[in-house]
Amino acid sequence: MRGSFLRPLTRRLSLCLVLCSLSTLAYICLLGSPRLQLTSSLNGLVDDPGGDDSPQTGSATQAGRELTCDINGLQHVSCLRDGLEVFLPFSFIRKYFEVYGKLSADGSTFHWQHSYSKYSNPSQKYKANGPYLWFGNYNVAIRDRVKVISGIEGKPKRSSRGVPVSTQWNSSGHLYPTQIAQFGLSHFSKNLTATSTTRRQFLLTRGTTQDGCEWKAKEGAVFRPTSDEDTGRPVMEFRTSEGEAAPGVELDFETTEQFPIVQLDLFLGQNGSVSVYVIASGTTYGVHYVMTDVLISSKGQDVYVGIGASRNAWRTLTRDVFIDLRKGLQTGTGKRASRTAAALVGKTVQIVKIVFRGHGRIGNATLLTQAHDEYFFAACNYLVKNQDRDGGWPITVGRNLVPELLFLTAPWYSAMAQGQCMSLLVRAYLVTRQQIYLQSALRALELFKKDSRNGGVLTKFADKYSWYEEYPTPKSSFVLNGFIYSLFGIYDVFKVSNDSGARTLFLDGMTSLKHMLPLFDTGSGSVYDLRHFSIPSLPPNIARWDYHTTHISQLLYLNTIMQSKILETTAQRWIDYLHGKRAPHN
Amino acid sequence: MRGSFLRPLTRRLSLCLVLCSLSTLAYICLLGSPRLQLTSSLNGLVDDPGGDDSPQTGSATQAGRELTCDINGLQHVSCLRDGLEVFLPFSFIRKYFEVYGKLSADGSTFHWQHSYSKYSNPSQKYKANGPYLWFGNYNVAIRDRVKVISGIEGKPKRSSRGVPVSTQWNSSGHLYPTQIAQFGLSHFSKNLTATSTTRRQFLLTRGTTQDGCEWKAKEGAVFRPTSDEDTGRPVMEFRTSEGEAAPGVELDFETTEQFPIVQLDLFLGQNGSVSVYVIASGTTYGVHYVMTDVLISSKGQDVYVGIGASRNAWRTLTRDVFIDLRKGLQTGTGKRASRTAAALVGKTVQIVKIVFRGHGRIGNATLLTQAHDEYFFAACNYLVKNQDRDGGWPITVGRNLVPELLFLTAPWYSAMAQGQCMSLLVRAYLVTRQQIYLQSALRALELFKKDSRNGGVLTKFADKYSWYEEYPTPKSSFVLNGFIYSLFGIYDVFKVSNDSGARTLFLDGMTSLKHMLPLFDTGSGSVYDLRHFSIPSLPPNIARWDYHTTHISQLLYLNTIMQSKILETTAQRWIDYLHGKRAPHN
Repeated sequence: MRGSFLRPLTRRLSLCLVLCSLSTLAYICLLGSPRLQLTSSLNGLVDDPGGDDSPQTGSATQAGRELTCDINGLQHVSCLRDGLEVFLPFSFIRKYFEVYGKLSADGSTFHWQHSYSKYSNPSQKYKANGPYLWFGNYNVAIRDRVKVISGIEGKPKRSSRGVPVSTQWNSSGHLYPTQIAQFGLSHFSKNLTATSTTRRQFLLTRGTTQDGCEWKAKEGAVFRPTSDEDTGRPVMEFRTSEGEAAPGVELDFETTEQFPIVQLDLFLGQNGSVSVYVIASGTTYGVHYVMTDVLISSKGQDVYVGIGASRNAWRTLTRDVFIDLRKGLQTGTGKRASRTAAALVGKTVQIVKIVFRGHGRIGNATLLTQAHDEYFFAACNYLVKNQDRDGGWPITVGRNLVPELLFLTAPWYSAMAQGQCMSLLVRAYLVTRQQIYLQSALRALELFKKDSRNGGVLTKFADKYSWYEEYPTPKSSFVLNGFIYSLFGIYDVFKVSNDSGARTLFLDGMTSLKHMLPLFDTGSGSVYDLRHFSIPSLPPNIARWDYHTTHISQLLYLNTIMQSKILETTAQRWIDYLHGKRAPHN
Repeated sequence: MRGSFLRPLTRRLSLCLVLCSLSTLAYICLLGSPRLQLTSSLNGLVDDPGGDDSPQTGSATQAGRELTCDINGLQHVSCLRDGLEVFLPFSFIRKYFEVYGKLSADGSTFHWQHSYSKYSNPSQKYKANGPYLWFGNYNVAIRDRVKVISGIEGKPKRSSRGVPVSTQWNSSGHLYPTQIAQFGLSHFSKNLTATSTTRRQFLLTRGTTQDGCEWKAKEGAVFRPTSDEDTGRPVMEFRTSEGEAAPGVELDFETTEQFPIVQLDLFLGQNGSVSVYVIASGTTYGVHYVMTDVLISSKGQDVYVGIGASRNAWRTLTRDVFIDLRKGLQTGTGKRASRTAAALVGKTVQIVKIVFRGHGRIGNATLLTQAHDEYFFAACNYLVKNQDRDGGWPITVGRNLVPELLFLTAPWYSAMAQGQCMSLLVRAYLVTRQQIYLQSALRALELFKKDSRNGGVLTKFADKYSWYEEYPTPKSSFVLNGFIYSLFGIYDVFKVSNDSGARTLFLDGMTSLKHMLPLFDTGSGSVYDLRHFSIPSLPPNIARWDYHTTHISQLLYLNTIMQSKILETTAQRWIDYLHGKRAPHN
């Protein structure tokens, strides 16, 4: 193809004697020879208007000449013609076929991309104690749909400390078990491969310490050693005026390393607060941890993260200050706020100072490079404490997939949430060997045995194949990715417990998947769900490329635990679709 | 789009001062301005290599300049660039997306076609006594898969006189009930709308007759009036030497009208034969109707059509001589034969002479413009006579849809054959009110009640939805178009008989269709069958455009008898796919 087109063009260029140069403008003359050879692949398709007998058909054969393309008789597009080859503008092709393209920086190459998303290829067999799929690549907290990692302490059942609050489907925020499980699974997986955590623990003393930090009690502020009433361990007490402008007890330090995480053992009394100051791109921001139940707010360069109003108890505060800063700035109104937040991405952010105000005690002050363990257990413990009597984690906001046709009214359960929570809890059990995690995961199975019309997550395809519904809509939606995630959860529970119920659920699910997978295959991509089977007046809901690659990754990982020609060939075909290949037609 | 691209180009052309003209070669200079406006739809997609600050990025902005397109990192294609618009060659686009295009004869417009096939929109409600769907547009006999319209007489059960012999799946030819039914249905439908038949009946006498034809008994040939032994009616007897070169009894005539059909009442004795001579494009061809069981053969310009070896009985020979000529020439070996046959298409073919040889009697000699009735009843009567005890028309050749996975061993029944035969027989009944046709159609229903694993055509989708199999493969294939054709047949039988079994079969089928139709929807076309559901290792079998339009036409016609939002919206969406529209993705 390349060769056959290049040859005539080169010849034309060598014939071109008129080469004009005017200032910095470059001219190029393209000579249109009236009898250029026919690009071979166009043979027989294009009517040669001149025919063999009329080589003089002047204007019709000028090189690079403009020409109208009539698209299905419905629209016109300006094209170019060179000999018998017609060239169509990418701006048209791109919209018509929804493909992607970008010119290289030097302008020499145009990179055509059929799809924009990549799949994950497992490097080893999926295991219940291993990384959760490819989730080690994710940073859940940073997602736009995460409002904040909650700092709120409360009674065990309602405490959300350390887990993400979701704005998915409800901008005011809710505790979405799927997101919480993914947050935990991502941190668990990162932890397996992460380099070891670097800690910088500050000495609790007054003045300059031996490790180069300095504790300063500003005017009127008190900072003194004392001992904890209950344990007797030595701690520092601070007492200052209140409010973020008040002179406080400051911990100043310099670091060369990126420490995004602050970990403090705190006992807060009246209006105690902690402010962490960071410098990003020359601007100083304040991230204030305050005793309120407002999750997060901001004003100018100041972000306020609620850590709950309850006082007079020791707590460990582990905060990713960079995330808090970003989430806080995003809560600001207007474009400026999100621009500021966006501007932080990838920038060097440095914690430079921690200030304590009001009244309280400090038992520990440490900077960390990562806190995967803490976040993993925050998620696990949240789920154990908030599992309901049915073994479920109810989702408290409604969901409208198709108005009046495909919807869920709160509260509802999700097979995907159940499954990912199970995968998380199984890992917590395998790390700790604490039965509470395993028992919670086992209890979560019950909803898989209960029909979605009765509040469970089980439905049947054509009354025959069991399907675990990510969205147990009154008319089944058969969402593929959520179903497969739930299979991994069931598998994990089965592997650690050998529970016969889990075994049956897994095998039933695999049977369904192997039979129904082809129904998700469009021959050039995949459908996200089978809503069109349940509600035949609906068009198929094609999966966008990132869901299509999710499907592929899931099949590849599933194939490491249940080898199957169906999974293998389907995954391979679906991979081929990413590059524009299509299933054959008859 | 058109405007935004045209403007800068026009400006460039008007700026272009160097316009060269050399002999008949035309030069055109395209001036590449370095800061052409960005084609709006490319905004944000294309990296502007220069950026706002560097307008002098010379070569990167030359108009019509060549550029490499890297396609998914897998292949390279030569493209053109004009400003920031990249133009891709249609020869690439065409293969990559399988679209169609043709330059207009004057070279001014390139016609892009997403699909190549048209659907049929019903102009009125489908009726059991009306045209069969859009089959009035078909000429079945002319199809390549029709070897010949059989001229063979035999015992009632084996006679194939007047029906097509198929070469589908078996080049030696077989009597394929689907094709026979379609042949009859097409002639029935044409007959409903055809202009009246023009006949030219020749006077049976010696010498020149008053209507300008001339009977000549060549040297040694006898041609004399006599009377039929049984009926006493006056007929002409001929007796000549045998063989196609022998002097015979000639009927010479001139016509201005196109009469493709010869109809003769004949009583043939020893080696009687009839030769019809036609002139096409200046060449004379002979089409010889000879007493043999060889269906058709040819040698040079001579075609031989077998009319069976049985003699000494009156028969009516009705032959489309043009079709016979074409089919005959196609039997010749080599490219020359098919070229000759192809060359006849659309050419004026004129019958100029009929020659009788050997011994026989002539009761009637007529030329006809059409013989729809005759062919319709030939098909009906063939089917009545050849229906088996199960009510079926067995197909006597095996069929391999996917080797070793999806196949049929002969003999087998087809729901499509059954259905189309039923539609044909119902029409014969409504025309003639002869019970034999209705009874035959009713008996044909029985196979729809019998499981395909037991020799019937009924299967179930997921043990739930009844499906009538065009190809009752051991693993169900769920071919859509054949299923819908069978529904029309069942509907026709129900409408004329009010048979409760037919009613149930039809309603069951409609229920299945409404539920399963979405599974045939790929979001950009349709699948031909659901083989991939039955054999999940298979890719979906995408319907090529002419099957896709068949699906659309079927849904539109079905919707005239059973109005349904599902049929309507699906048909409309599938029509949109013809122009490149796609179902939405999430």
